Amino acid sequence: MTFHDRPVFPRGFRCTSTNCGLKPDAKDLALFVSENDAAAAAVFTRNHFPGAPVLLGRETIRFGTLRAIVANSKCSNVATGARGLENARRMAAAAATEIGSTPDRVLVSSTGVIGVQLPIEKIERGIVGMAAQLQSDPMVGAEGIMTTDTHPKALSARVGDATITWVAKGSGMIEPNMATMLAYVFTDAEFDAPALDKMLRAAVHVSFNMLSVDTDTSTSDTCAILANGMAGRVDEKAFLESLTAGCIKMTETLARDGEGARHLLRTTVRGAATEDAARRVAKSLVNSPLIKTMVHGADPNVGRLLMAVGKVFDVNVRPATTDAWINGHAVVKGGERLDFDEAIVRAALASEVVDLEVTLGLGTAAATAYGCDLTAGYVEENAAYYSS
Amino acid sequence: MTFHDRPVFPRGFRCTSTNCGLKPDAKDLALFVSENDAAAAAVFTRNHFPGAPVLLGRETIRFGTLRAIVANSKCSNVATGARGLENARRMAAAAATEIGSTPDRVLVSSTGVIGVQLPIEKIERGIVGMAAQLQSDPMVGAEGIMTTDTHPKALSARVGDATITWVAKGSGMIEPNMATMLAYVFTDAEFDAPALDKMLRAAVHVSFNMLSVDTDTSTSDTCAILANGMAGRVDEKAFLESLTAGCIKMTETLARDGEGARHLLRTTVRGAATEDAARRVAKSLVNSPLIKTMVHGADPNVGRLLMAVGKVFDVNVRPATTDAWINGHAVVKGGERLDFDEAIVRAALASEVVDLEVTLGLGTAAATAYGCDLTAGYVEENAAYYSS
Repeated sequence: MTFHDRPVFPRGFRCTSTNCGLKPDAKDLALFVSENDAAAAAVFTRNHFPGAPVLLGRETIRFGTLRAIVANSKCSNVATGARGLENARRMAAAAATEIGSTPDRVLVSSTGVIGVQLPIEKIERGIVGMAAQLQSDPMVGAEGIMTTDTHPKALSARVGDATITWVAKGSGMIEPNMATMLAYVFTDAEFDAPALDKMLRAAVHVSFNMLSVDTDTSTSDTCAILANGMAGRVDEKAFLESLTAGCIKMTETLARDGEGARHLLRTTVRGAATEDAARRVAKSLVNSPLIKTMVHGADPNVGRLLMAVGKVFDVNVRPATTDAWINGHAVVKGGERLDFDEAIVRAALASEVVDLEVTLGLGTAAATAYGCDLTAGYVEENAAYYSS
Repeated sequence: MTFHDRPVFPRGFRCTSTNCGLKPDAKDLALFVSENDAAAAAVFTRNHFPGAPVLLGRETIRFGTLRAIVANSKCSNVATGARGLENARRMAAAAATEIGSTPDRVLVSSTGVIGVQLPIEKIERGIVGMAAQLQSDPMVGAEGIMTTDTHPKALSARVGDATITWVAKGSGMIEPNMATMLAYVFTDAEFDAPALDKMLRAAVHVSFNMLSVDTDTSTSDTCAILANGMAGRVDEKAFLESLTAGCIKMTETLARDGEGARHLLRTTVRGAATEDAARRVAKSLVNSPLIKTMVHGADPNVGRLLMAVGKVFDVNVRPATTDAWINGHAVVKGGERLDFDEAIVRAALASEVVDLEVTLGLGTAAATAYGCDLTAGYVEENAAYYSS
């Protein structure tokens, strides 16, 4: 699948973003609108303390229809109780009024600091007039949902006569686990809500759900897809393939922009007895602070690969059949460190994209996880997130 | 229980350490010896890639008798295959010869880089003459097993007429999970091996097994207890209480000296439905990079406590009954952030010891986990561990 050089929207979708005063200058409020009612599906965080927008979103998505998404950054409206839920409803209502729809067709998202009440009046004032500003560049909407992201994130691709467009944000507090950070998918292909739901879950399973920046699962994770049908029906298999490929590409984009990250880290496990075993070992590798710092320092301390495979206690592992590669260079064979050329492996670890591959020799299941290196930048950013 | 101001050995135990050439100048080889055969028990890492000394130690400890422990730092003898196991056996044999015992009564430990063959000739040469250097200060032995530790670690306390002495090392690749880093316990109390095994497991369960510096489980973790009986029988209940208290104190010492750490972080969960639930939530809190960086920056971003409780998906959590405190200051009530005095909480987070307490309001089970903050020092140390 090829992605457009510059992302475009499918027919009938537009967006805008603005500063409503939550941040000093940067964009902090975004609105995405479909011309007509779009079939829709969404998955949300499994964290036990979901934010008010997630609680409301679970209600809203039951109808399977969306006209718009309204999202703010800086304040996540999490741990804010009944008042928080009321504020999320007011945000949906304000957006519905602005675009001439109803609140039950507006998905609300908020990300940012946890445990602070939403400045809802600023947001309501900010929404007024946004309908007149709607335009066709998805990057403008992506900019409005950024928090610690270093750049706005959007992608698009064709499938048959239809277009799929992904807009996402996220760089910290990311190990989605059955949902994701904010990621919106827009398409003009025609599918009903149950079909969208099934395809979205399949795509998220191998993409956003295999992403981890820091093992911390956000209370705001949301991934939604809107299909307005303007391009008519397209082949479901082709659509699912494109949807999955784009979700994986966006997952890599989020991982590469992980807080403080300098590398995209991909960990692939093959030869596992079950898919669950492959996924868990891949996650253990991508989450290990000692592997993340090894990549950061391009330090060929490859014994750490075995440590991170071996600490998944309840997955069957056999040292004698365990091999490992770094960007294609064999470094472990049969559970023992090989006598490899250190300069070559050091150079491989210094690449922007580092692929760690492990084969377990116990079956045919495989999985890939996506993450990044651990740097002093991550520490610095998160030691003063609330205060700055 | 009160600990001695300066650690001493129980009757009949002595130790020494030396530089045998694994490190440029620092001590890298330690020997701990009991005058007579001591009853012994040990627990080891559950990592699927245990080092050769752990494989050998599991054999040795089956006899329930130890005369000595010999341990080197700098090289862990992990992922080294048949040759590694042979080298571990040679190390036990050399120590046995030196002290006039047999190899099946010598526990071997090695820690340091994974995947490099042990320079066994240097170690064999280093062991010769160590028996003549044995002396009575446990700190001298503790010095010989240090890797990235910033100081040697030993403790001692009285129980009845007996003494218990703990010697340990460890500051990175630490989330023991059913074993621990290197921690040796010496006593002149009289117990048989099965009684020691039972007490050691009980004490480790609430101490070393609740320690995590970085979620990474070492391939070398070993905790052993030697009881030479020279002080005769002591009350078992009193002994277990002292053993547990000392293991917890040593756990705190290891956590406080975690790589790059500036704070000891203790997370206590009460009101859980089961002990397992309490332990898992406490571990989630102590391991969360966003909580660790919050402590590092003394940033009162207390919503992160809820995030870390809420991400334990398979433990029952009810937001309405979830409260939290930082060093005794209430910051969350009923799943919502309280309007607390930020200056006070900021000061509490800046203390050397930071206690995070969460009550779940679902039962009576409780657990405490031990860890530290996450700093740029951890990243720096581990980005060049192999190369430096």
